[in-house]
Amino acid sequence: MSGVNVAIIGTGLVGSAFVRQLQAVQKKSPGVFNVILVARSKATYVSKDYSPLSLDSYSTGSSDLLNIEQIAAYLEKSPKPVILVDNTSNEDWANSYPLFLSKSISVATPNKKAFSSSLDLWKKVFGASNGPKGGLVYHEATVGAGLPVLGPLNDLVATGDEIVKIDGIVSGTLSYIFNEFSTIEGSTVKFSDVVKKAKSLGYTEPDPRDDLNGLDVARKVTILARLSGLPVESPTSFPVDSLIPKPLESAASADEFLEKLPEYDGELDKLRQEAQAENKVLRFVGKVDIAAGAVKVGIEKYDASHPFASLKGSDNVISIQSERYASPLIIQGAGAGAEVTAAGVLADVFKIEQRLRK
Amino acid sequence: MSGVNVAIIGTGLVGSAFVRQLQAVQKKSPGVFNVILVARSKATYVSKDYSPLSLDSYSTGSSDLLNIEQIAAYLEKSPKPVILVDNTSNEDWANSYPLFLSKSISVATPNKKAFSSSLDLWKKVFGASNGPKGGLVYHEATVGAGLPVLGPLNDLVATGDEIVKIDGIVSGTLSYIFNEFSTIEGSTVKFSDVVKKAKSLGYTEPDPRDDLNGLDVARKVTILARLSGLPVESPTSFPVDSLIPKPLESAASADEFLEKLPEYDGELDKLRQEAQAENKVLRFVGKVDIAAGAVKVGIEKYDASHPFASLKGSDNVISIQSERYASPLIIQGAGAGAEVTAAGVLADVFKIEQRLRK
Ligand SMILES: NC(=O)c1ccc[n+]([C@@H]2O[C@H](COP(=O)([O-])OP(=O)(O)OC[C@H]3O[C@@H](n4cnc5c(N)ncnc54)[C@H](OP(=O)(O)O)[C@@H]3O)[C@@H](O)[C@H]2O)c1
Ligand SMILES: NC(=O)c1ccc[n+]([C@@H]2O[C@H](COP(=O)([O-])OP(=O)(O)OC[C@H]3O[C@@H](n4cnc5c(N)ncnc54)[C@H](OP(=O)(O)O)[C@@H]3O)[C@@H](O)[C@H]2O)c1
Repeated sequence: MSGVNVAIIGTGLVGSAFVRQLQAVQKKSPGVFNVILVARSKATYVSKDYSPLSLDSYSTGSSDLLNIEQIAAYLEKSPKPVILVDNTSNEDWANSYPLFLSKSISVATPNKKAFSSSLDLWKKVFGASNGPKGGLVYHEATVGAGLPVLGPLNDLVATGDEIVKIDGIVSGTLSYIFNEFSTIEGSTVKFSDVVKKAKSLGYTEPDPRDDLNGLDVARKVTILARLSGLPVESPTSFPVDSLIPKPLESAASADEFLEKLPEYDGELDKLRQEAQAENKVLRFVGKVDIAAGAVKVGIEKYDASHPFASLKGSDNVISIQSERYASPLIIQGAGAGAEVTAAGVLADVFKIEQRLRK
Repeated sequence: MSGVNVAIIGTGLVGSAFVRQLQAVQKKSPGVFNVILVARSKATYVSKDYSPLSLDSYSTGSSDLLNIEQIAAYLEKSPKPVILVDNTSNEDWANSYPLFLSKSISVATPNKKAFSSSLDLWKKVFGASNGPKGGLVYHEATVGAGLPVLGPLNDLVATGDEIVKIDGIVSGTLSYIFNEFSTIEGSTVKFSDVVKKAKSLGYTEPDPRDDLNGLDVARKVTILARLSGLPVESPTSFPVDSLIPKPLESAASADEFLEKLPEYDGELDKLRQEAQAENKVLRFVGKVDIAAGAVKVGIEKYDASHPFASLKGSDNVISIQSERYASPLIIQGAGAGAEVTAAGVLADVFKIEQRLRK
């Protein structure tokens, strides 16, 4: 018996790109990845006899609304090893990974929640994976989307290197905003105008405060810190500089927030002028200092010649300094987008299948 | 039965670092990696009954001088799956990978020869690996030493992305030489003086012409091109600009070469001045253009704001442009050194063990 069974949870932006990419793989290598379940928030398409569903036509069939426990019970009885692909950002699904992993079901996911919430959940996830008959868990796309970050970081740690520091621009949205706001050439655009432009380009969440609060960066930094050996308690257990002016935290709507934001342009403009006077630019970064046990998220100044200063568009960049490396390992590129994120998840699925293959 | 047996060929700079790192791993996870054979050019330490050799004391035991066929016959009878770690730059060993792979023996190596010589050997290597009961083959450290380059490139290709272009500064020696020779600030140092300094720092081969001829870069670019889907015939089947002045190719010794090199400083100085006039710097790069089917190695000019222009020390940098990525994936960092190269090989050994694990 060869091949694996795959359960896909979520067919939104990333999930539907994942389905398309998997279809192309199925054409090239039939029989390796057999999809037996596809779930959305209000429908579950399931192959009761574990025969493969067609990715062209599964959604024309009848659907159920199975809950997580029912899905776990179903997958547990699969005649082939199972990979659960969680393409949601759902907390309940994240909380259930220990259950799936303890049933020998492997997990591949771009959902940050399980890895960046309480340290207790992190321990349960990896405890279950490392336990008897534990499933494998891969989550490369939770930091830097399709960029190869967590795999290489895990390799350094596994081979006995000691991580010293990690600095990263890991939010595509905040990368774009600061790359426009603060340039080596001396941009003078207003912060509030850049935020509005980012929103109009579709680069922000519907309410830009969900990017500006720094929580997404804090979650990614939590993952980087934990993989480097720092047992960070939660993404709110270290200093995170929010870019939302205090009085606007309670603004009733995104529109009201954007309307009032120009009143607060002065503060960031002053910071930018100070940086310019030193031939530096501002960037919104996450920082992990392993020896000091310190993690923080906020605005930093970088010299014009620093790789972070010449970043463009909404690119991410992660710099990993370790004992063994004379100069930091720098990984840079597009850190968001449905296609590249889906490809990151698919590469994880391949790695799991290779390890499960008999 | 768990764990794998490991055969280590070569204990030079990289090989001895590999042995030290593996010792640390054995202390943490006893029984997983059992070394049953260690070979140097004039001695083979072998455990006749396949019980693990101690990495502290193997070389105090008696040695044989087994040839490659004898070693293959010995490893084929191993009761556990075997990983052959080739830490030499030997051509005979490279030519023998198909033999080992066809016997279910996996290969992890920083030795470029098998992957950058004739296309025929490349096909035999991967043919054997993909054949019935073929061993696995990993060679991350053949490009960029410990930098994660080939794994991420393979992931892009496997998930259905199309590689468009790859540009890379992949020789630590030539990176150092050009980072010193041509800077954004406008260095005026003589090329011949930089070469002499590089040699005195131990950055070059004993005869610097072995770096300056571009062949090492051509070999690495051959590997990158082939993994991207371009069936490059050999590292001499595309244009490679040698930095050795024609008349000095026949200089009898490295000393004679270095003595006469200043006579030819004018040409590179002129190129540097032309670049400076355009606010550009010179770098020695390998370039792969998949659509055009073109590969070349030589000097290129880069804008001051390009990531290649701000490179420092002997760092490597590889830029991968693909269909799916809006901006290229850039991987940068120390691309040479025994410790980081050994760590790259060890990470490959881990990946193989994970896939062989039952
Ligand atoms: N987009 C990116 O660039 C990017 C980059 C890196 C990581 N990610 C991560 O990738 C994940 C997916 O992002 P996305 O942009 O694809 O989100 P999305 O477009 O909002 O899609 C979410 C999908 O999850 C489904 N879903 C939500 N709750 C569910 C539940 N309880 N049970 C089953 N299905 C449920 C939704 O169902 P319905 O279809 O019924 O609404 C939808 O199909 C997130 O964790 C995100 O953080 C995204
Ligand atoms: N050093 C780096 O930074 C770096 C970076 C990337 C890749 N690499 C690659 O890593 C490999 C090793 O490099 P290195 O710097 O460690 O070289 P090295 O110091 O010259 O060591 C070579 C080792 O191979 C052994 N050897 C040679 N021929 C052999 C044969 N026929 N049978 C068994 N053993 C043989 C030598 O044996 P003796 O001890 O008896 O001489 C020596 O132990 C090369 O392929 C190199 O291109 C190196």
